[in-house]
Amino acid sequence: MNKFKRNHHPWIYKNEIMTIKGDFEDGQIVDVFLKSGQFFARGYINTKSKITVRILTFEPKTIEQILQSRIEQAIHRRRFLLKYEQACRLIYSESDWLAGLIVDKFGPYLVIQINTLGMEKLKELSVKILLQQVEVSGIYEKSDSPARLKEGLEKRSGWIYGNGPEIIYYRSNGLTLASDLKGQKTGAFLDQRLNARALFPYAEGKKCVDVFSYTGNFALHLLKYGAKHVKLIDYSQRSLQIADQLMKLNGFEGRYDLICANAFDWLKRETSLTEQYDLIVLDPPSFAKTSSAKESAERGHKEVNLRAIKLLKKPGLLVSSSCTQILSAFDFERVMQSVASDCKVNLRIAYRGGQPEDHPILLGVPETEYLKFYIFEAWRRD
Amino acid sequence: MNKFKRNHHPWIYKNEIMTIKGDFEDGQIVDVFLKSGQFFARGYINTKSKITVRILTFEPKTIEQILQSRIEQAIHRRRFLLKYEQACRLIYSESDWLAGLIVDKFGPYLVIQINTLGMEKLKELSVKILLQQVEVSGIYEKSDSPARLKEGLEKRSGWIYGNGPEIIYYRSNGLTLASDLKGQKTGAFLDQRLNARALFPYAEGKKCVDVFSYTGNFALHLLKYGAKHVKLIDYSQRSLQIADQLMKLNGFEGRYDLICANAFDWLKRETSLTEQYDLIVLDPPSFAKTSSAKESAERGHKEVNLRAIKLLKKPGLLVSSSCTQILSAFDFERVMQSVASDCKVNLRIAYRGGQPEDHPILLGVPETEYLKFYIFEAWRRD
Repeated sequence: MNKFKRNHHPWIYKNEIMTIKGDFEDGQIVDVFLKSGQFFARGYINTKSKITVRILTFEPKTIEQILQSRIEQAIHRRRFLLKYEQACRLIYSESDWLAGLIVDKFGPYLVIQINTLGMEKLKELSVKILLQQVEVSGIYEKSDSPARLKEGLEKRSGWIYGNGPEIIYYRSNGLTLASDLKGQKTGAFLDQRLNARALFPYAEGKKCVDVFSYTGNFALHLLKYGAKHVKLIDYSQRSLQIADQLMKLNGFEGRYDLICANAFDWLKRETSLTEQYDLIVLDPPSFAKTSSAKESAERGHKEVNLRAIKLLKKPGLLVSSSCTQILSAFDFERVMQSVASDCKVNLRIAYRGGQPEDHPILLGVPETEYLKFYIFEAWRRD
Repeated sequence: MNKFKRNHHPWIYKNEIMTIKGDFEDGQIVDVFLKSGQFFARGYINTKSKITVRILTFEPKTIEQILQSRIEQAIHRRRFLLKYEQACRLIYSESDWLAGLIVDKFGPYLVIQINTLGMEKLKELSVKILLQQVEVSGIYEKSDSPARLKEGLEKRSGWIYGNGPEIIYYRSNGLTLASDLKGQKTGAFLDQRLNARALFPYAEGKKCVDVFSYTGNFALHLLKYGAKHVKLIDYSQRSLQIADQLMKLNGFEGRYDLICANAFDWLKRETSLTEQYDLIVLDPPSFAKTSSAKESAERGHKEVNLRAIKLLKKPGLLVSSSCTQILSAFDFERVMQSVASDCKVNLRIAYRGGQPEDHPILLGVPETEYLKFYIFEAWRRD
């Protein structure tokens, strides 16, 4: 393990450990020592995981001290955001040195997600500290990530403090948006907040599609910024119903269509027609969770982008995202080069975005970076 | 040459050319044919340059048609910006398929820069078309880049249409800023417009330094966003005098100090003192122009960042830029990892910016990308 990785990365892999001594249960807090016997770090262990120890601190503090200071630090650095945003991510797992814990704030409610056995055991204490730090009406646990199964945990969802509605409405970028507690992830994608705002100069008068729309975050922004019309494509009837509600709440009646369909099928069907849109947003799911599936993620991204470009007027705008951690920006741009070649178009990057300040990236910890966002100008070679 | 590069890159290198036929002068418009004899592209030639042909179009249009449509396209895609920005880049060389031509707009004035022999010969025609497309009071040629010498061109500066002041004031991000026609590049760094705006949440109450301040773009933004005090460090007395003027025009009296010094020397001198700043901005020159100088660019960046971090309170904010084309974001982050290791700090990326929409990047043409911008949170490992 090189020195930088050792000192700046929160993960210790099984093959980096010489010996494990003492009695312990998986999920318990343990100390890590260097070969010299010197104390190195404190974290929690899971011998069933390839990532055997996840470090929480490099100081020999009690677990109460660790959680207290980590949660305080995480919230402190977002205080400026909380001044003007009703919704933001309060705790982003490894990026806040709180591996396995995600906490999003939507108005007076928190949605928490726990992804590891070690953090599961710290849940009660974490919630107690959270309640000291932020004033909330309710905390909803939405621990329904498939990652839990690998840690030997079952999925679990429900209010664990106070109570609240199933759909939480909040204001962001001058719009009414929603977190659906029966929906994806923590109910809303706060990570696209700044990227959605970046659409501001590009929407006016445009005929748009929002593919993989979920509850319509990008579509709502496009309409606010002056788009003429947006089609929302999503396979979830429920998500589209919420999108419909949000469209009405924001006063966008008559400027949108909701299409309940598998995005691939819809794109395939439409491609047989002629070019018809000025701007297409693609915000697909990750396509792949493990690095062995990198190729399939590349194929998935290639296919949707290829089909979208065929539907675009030229010149037109392709707004393309990838939330696949195993595809770097470099990989994604390579995929887009191959798309451009196949479609015989030029692509110019007008805007390249990433994760907002409440989803920060630890330098040298590529696992904390996943979101890529581009506004491409596409035109026929001339 | 692979298919993507051939079809999407505006440069043809000497070693990519089989034969050159016909009579021509360097700087003249020429046609490029494939081995099969098929027309491929039209551009201008300079046999003295390793980049022998710079492509302007893939269609056999007249040079008047080419320039007309390229300049129209370039301005058209910035129309939305011109609605709310007094200053923006109108033409960005290869990114607008107008290799060698840069045009910046500051209020009613244009500043143009010509960097190649081929574009030099198209200057008159370009200016004529520009005048049809935008209403201007004056055009200043500021062709003083060292790149001209390699093309066999001398430096040249002066008003070539109308007339105007030596210092052009303009509004941006709610501030009065200036382009100094006796200063660097086109007089102001429009490429940092969005990055400077990204400082908004980070400035309040902070004690800051703006190293390599030039006329104070970042310092002015910091003060507008609530910084308590900013020190501006620059080696140019003239630039600092303009900064002083701008500070007063924006009402920031008593909240800044101007220090005329070599930035390296100042940083070195200050490091002997203790940590004293909450936020440090580093916007150094490129350190290197050729790829053989990549190592020296890395060394330069490493040194200034290392010294800056030593001056920072922990936790503190390091705002670090690189405009060195030969250092990729990946390279720059590697340099910063080594800085973090040496300083025994953790660095977290709160914001990663790049070039704004008026400095777009051609996909697959890395030469059109140069600007990297980061807001790092630095703290001692805990």
